[in-house]
Amino acid sequence: MRHVRLVLQYDGTDYAGFQVQPDRPTVQGTLEQALGKLLNETVRVAGAGRTDAGVHAEGQVVSFTTDNVIPLERIVPALNALLPPDVVALRADEAPPGFHPRFGARRKEYRYRILNRELPSPFEGRFAWHIPEPLDVTAMQAAAAELVGEHDFAAFCAAGGAARTSVREVLELSVERDDEMVEITVLGSGFLYMMVRIIVGTPVEVGRGRMSPARVREILESRDRTQAGPTAPPRGLALLRVEY
Amino acid sequence: MRHVRLVLQYDGTDYAGFQVQPDRPTVQGTLEQALGKLLNETVRVAGAGRTDAGVHAEGQVVSFTTDNVIPLERIVPALNALLPPDVVALRADEAPPGFHPRFGARRKEYRYRILNRELPSPFEGRFAWHIPEPLDVTAMQAAAAELVGEHDFAAFCAAGGAARTSVREVLELSVERDDEMVEITVLGSGFLYMMVRIIVGTPVEVGRGRMSPARVREILESRDRTQAGPTAPPRGLALLRVEY
Repeated sequence: MRHVRLVLQYDGTDYAGFQVQPDRPTVQGTLEQALGKLLNETVRVAGAGRTDAGVHAEGQVVSFTTDNVIPLERIVPALNALLPPDVVALRADEAPPGFHPRFGARRKEYRYRILNRELPSPFEGRFAWHIPEPLDVTAMQAAAAELVGEHDFAAFCAAGGAARTSVREVLELSVERDDEMVEITVLGSGFLYMMVRIIVGTPVEVGRGRMSPARVREILESRDRTQAGPTAPPRGLALLRVEY
Repeated sequence: MRHVRLVLQYDGTDYAGFQVQPDRPTVQGTLEQALGKLLNETVRVAGAGRTDAGVHAEGQVVSFTTDNVIPLERIVPALNALLPPDVVALRADEAPPGFHPRFGARRKEYRYRILNRELPSPFEGRFAWHIPEPLDVTAMQAAAAELVGEHDFAAFCAAGGAARTSVREVLELSVERDDEMVEITVLGSGFLYMMVRIIVGTPVEVGRGRMSPARVREILESRDRTQAGPTAPPRGLALLRVEY
């Protein structure tokens, strides 16, 4: 029995998320179907991050076991020939002993893109949140700084997660403007359900002038989801990379 | 009678080009339909560049005449509410007297994007030509330099154009690598039918090592289309801007 690790990129727009669901297109389901054809057996994959519907990945990590003796270097080209164009396998290697893509993940990095200009863009509709009002990036950076560190992020997660504790550590949280695009990048040891999108929604309220940067600490301390900003839409979010 | 100038962006993937055609979706047709609804009259637009099927625009310029007294500042928001998401109006102003977007254009700039990595990208399928073999950008720059200046570009145009002469001036032609993306930018006073895509195809042959940079001058002098490189696919091309 071999245990293989894959790195994947995908445009999540047309999927009901990563995790397999009956009768809906999912990244996991699409990948398992392609692997099933390639390896001529039923394949189940585990993923590092269960990205939501419409969320993308630049470096999702998955693994699967197989009895097939296909050479490692054949897996990526053969798999890509079977996958649709919106899912691409980048690399395949033998998984280290005991490897699990989710439980073994040490750190994950996500990036959120905001198109901050008056008018929408015909090129960014799938990949960015369009906010027409000018965002104050300096205020957003001050708000973001309040969230860095180990905190109880109960105010920054949605109901429906299965986590035992809502304490998490945000290692880095940056807000940068590049012309019309504002990018928020977050690195953490782990994230609660919807946490990245609620984290993004809160500095955005600050950037719009609806909330002071100092208010973010009070929200954190409230542990009350209704205090934080709205959940940012999925299309701007991508799982960038997973560290082990 | 008012004469209005518009600047447009569009994703050309789902259009049979800019120019109106019976029974096929075109950018011009889509725009004329939206303007017709907005202004409550039949509108004909003229465009600066008749981009081919699948070619995009960051700054296409069009103009139209109307009897409608709609305030100028209302045109862009009202028009965008009627246009599909892959066509966006950026600006509207009163056209100068005697203005014609195509005949009055002094210079046009196009950009061509090549995704130069082994594997395709789920994000760039609509917006870049995927070339898996590593391209030698230095050799491509030497090839591009041969094309700068006033030349007879007969070897670099396709049959079907209506131009009286094939002499054109290429003012700038740059090839730059940014990580996995190779961008070719060309600025000229005017272009023949398919000229930009054939110009791109030729340095690409050089970058692949199939042709020497010096060969490009011989091709130019041959005035023979069969000597130049293949026509690059439309998806990598965008009309960046038009100068008057």
